[in-house]
Parts: sequence; structure tokens; C-alpha cells
Amino acid sequence: MSEVDLTYDAFLGGLVHLWQPRTGYRAGVDPVLLAASIPAVSGQRVLELGCGVGAAILCLGARVEGLVLTGVEREAVYAGLAMRNGGSSLEVVEADLAALPLTVRERQFDHVLANPPYWRRLASVATGDTLREAALGEQTPLYLWVQTAAKRLAPKGMLHLIHRAERLPELLAALPRDMGSIEVLPIAAREGRGAERIILRARKSGRADFRLHTPLILHCGDLHIDGDQYTPKVRAALRAGAALDF
Amino acid sequence: MSEVDLTYDAFLGGLVHLWQPRTGYRAGVDPVLLAASIPAVSGQRVLELGCGVGAAILCLGARVEGLVLTGVEREAVYAGLAMRNGGSSLEVVEADLAALPLTVRERQFDHVLANPPYWRRLASVATGDTLREAALGEQTPLYLWVQTAAKRLAPKGMLHLIHRAERLPELLAALPRDMGSIEVLPIAAREGRGAERIILRARKSGRADFRLHTPLILHCGDLHIDGDQYTPKVRAALRAGAALDF
Repeated sequence: MSEVDLTYDAFLGGLVHLWQPRTGYRAGVDPVLLAASIPAVSGQRVLELGCGVGAAILCLGARVEGLVLTGVEREAVYAGLAMRNGGSSLEVVEADLAALPLTVRERQFDHVLANPPYWRRLASVATGDTLREAALGEQTPLYLWVQTAAKRLAPKGMLHLIHRAERLPELLAALPRDMGSIEVLPIAAREGRGAERIILRARKSGRADFRLHTPLILHCGDLHIDGDQYTPKVRAALRAGAALDF
Repeated sequence: MSEVDLTYDAFLGGLVHLWQPRTGYRAGVDPVLLAASIPAVSGQRVLELGCGVGAAILCLGARVEGLVLTGVEREAVYAGLAMRNGGSSLEVVEADLAALPLTVRERQFDHVLANPPYWRRLASVATGDTLREAALGEQTPLYLWVQTAAKRLAPKGMLHLIHRAERLPELLAALPRDMGSIEVLPIAAREGRGAERIILRARKSGRADFRLHTPLILHCGDLHIDGDQYTPKVRAALRAGAALDF
């Protein structure tokens, strides 16, 4: 892929810059909000499944110093860009999350995050019908993202996923029994709207009650008047690298 | 139970009056909001599981004319009060929902609703461990409420449940495969708070995507200044018998 196919984009108000393909999947708001939601502290080990060019995990690394960052990415082009974007701060493993190499499988992480593809599953497709799912384009079923992430967590380690709100029941159903202290942060475009995205948080061996948080609202006002007017909390996360506490 | 043990209380601004025991379970806001959330139309058959003294189903019957109402209640005292409260407008079946009589099992309903007890389950109790659950007071496990309700629905019939928000994952897990078009209405005490209750809606053979609605806020302002200041939407549902559309 030559230079002309790439763009060099600023995230967190310029704290992070990322090379990414001009076409195809491009990191937007979601990986940045995902990164902002993770209460990591210096010295912890962090794994991102399907890290793409590294947007989420590098935004997290820019906010919290001293993390040990590992990203897994199946597509060579994205893995290569993640290496370039992360430099020595990010270990990139080019692998399918369904077949992680031993170097990853033998390790545990304090945080695992993922922003799985927002594919559309037909309502008629039963979970576990993998042949049909593959035919429909779900090369890696959503439950495998969840289960692989959970498996790589250290005791008390935390999982964070961002996905379309409509997939919440599947995400919950896919969580292994040893994942608890589940929390959901709904993300709505505007006040009074239903959730478009959710951030799912869960803790290995967690025992706290399930919590459904007040929604995070992305935009102010009812209409697009002069472009996107982010709410202060979202603006702080996107433009100043602030944490998104919930 | 003599008259002195009862109170006679107004609901929906006096549209409904209910005899209920002075002590023990007393209908509050939740059954009224549950009733307000059900988009029933005249002529439809409605079943409430665990109807108590009839608060939810009689509030629904007061808002929508021409419904055919059936309530199932295990406790004789509550069943008797439901009969007294409902008169000829409510058929009351004194039965355990885990062992419904044939007269109920042979019928299908357009709407099934329930406001199961808000028991506290220990996080360590595994679903399906019925002996231990019984010992902890869960005489009827939550999944049985959900599955019994779903079984009694006619094709395209709708289920509505209200429960503590922390039980949402269990409620979703208990929904049989043929229930779809799932919607969740979070209910929060105040703006900016997490959900304390949820209303779960699902449709038999529904195929629409899962929806997580914007929360219903119960109270205005941040503090109790002079009693409960309900938000206009909640006040309309509680005091004027308005529908709660979502």
C-alpha cells in the first residue's frame, strides 16, 4: 500500500496521530470513547483484539502512562499500520483472534478491549450456526470475540467492548460464567434518543450487581446546526484525552 | 382478613381504587408504570402473572376499554382482594404460575405482564440451582416467570415485565428463542442516575432489532425538596392514566 492511499489523522486533539487507509475501515469516535472508558493504571498489561491501525489502544496509551500494550490484528495492512503508528510502545501480533499464537495465549492481561466490526446479523441466524454465519460474512462470530477476550483476562481483569446497542443481548449471552460486575454505558446521539452504541464492561470473577448507567449523550441540541456540537464530556474525551468515568 | 387490615387506595388520580393489605406487599409506582407501557387495544386478551391485588392489570383495564383481563395469583389473600377489586371486569385464577390450571394453559393471550417480586439473589447462586434458590426464598425462579409468560402468548403477542435493573441480564437470558423485538426502557430516579428499574418488552416471533430506549426519569431536580416531584410524563401516567409510549 503506497503513501497516497493513506491519511495521517490527529486524535485526542493531536496527542495521537495515526496513519490509516483512505478507504475501508477508518477509526472514528467509537474506539476513542472505548479507550477513554478504561480505568487502566500504570504498569498494567493491555490487550486489544482486532486493533486495526491501533486507534483505541494507542489513545489509551496516550492517556495512561506506563501501560504494556499488545494489539492483535488479522489483516496484514492494518497490522502493519498499527506497528508504524505504535512504534516501540505497541506490540502488534498479526493473527486471527480465533487462533491466537501461543505467545499471546500463554499471557494474561489486566485489560482486554475490542471494537468488533459492526456487521449486521440476520435475525433468523441462530447463534452457533457457524457455517451459515461464515456465509453471511461473519468470519469471526461475536461470541468468539467475547469469549476470547474473557479467556485472556487475569483474575479481576476487566473487559471493555463497544458495539451497536442492538447487539447487547448477544454480548451478554456470550459472557462466560466467570465474568461478573457487568456494566453497560448506553451511548445516544442526542438527549431523548435511544442508545445507538453501548460500552460493555465486565470483570473476571466480579460479583457486583449488573449496572445500567445513565446514557452518554454525544451531541448537544436537537439539530445539526453548524456541524457536530459534542457535549462537554464527549468533547473532553475526544479532543483532550480525558477519561470517561462511569 | 378483616376490614381493619386493609386500606382502600386511589390509583390513576382516582380512576382506580384498590383494597390492599395495610402491611406486606403494597402496590406502588411500578405496577402502574408497567400498565401504562402496554400498547393494548380494545378486544385483546390480557394475562397478568402474580397479579397481587390487581394493581397493574386493573390500571391497564381502566386506561384501555374492552380488554379481556385474567390475573393469576398464588396467595389466597391477594387473589381474594383482586376479585373484590376487579369485580366482573377481572377473572382471577388462584394458582401458582409454575402449575397453571388447564383453563389457563389452553388459552393464548395478546399481552402477558408481570411485576415479579424484587427478591435479592446472591451473586454466587447459579441459575438452575433450584434447591438453593428455594432455600433463599426464591420460590419461583425468575426464569420461570419469563418462560411461563412467553408460553401463554399468542403469535405476535407482547410480553411486558418490570424488575430491578440489575436483573436485566437474567431476564434476557431467560427469554425463549421465539421471543424477539426486545426493548428495554430504563427507569431512573433522577436525571444522570443509573437505572433502578427496567421495563422489558418482547414480542412472540418478533424480528426487530433489540432497542435500548432513553431512560424514563421519575423525579425532577436533584433533591427531594417538598416531597416527590414527578416528571410530567410520569405524573401523567400515575395521576391521569396516560399511556407511557416508548
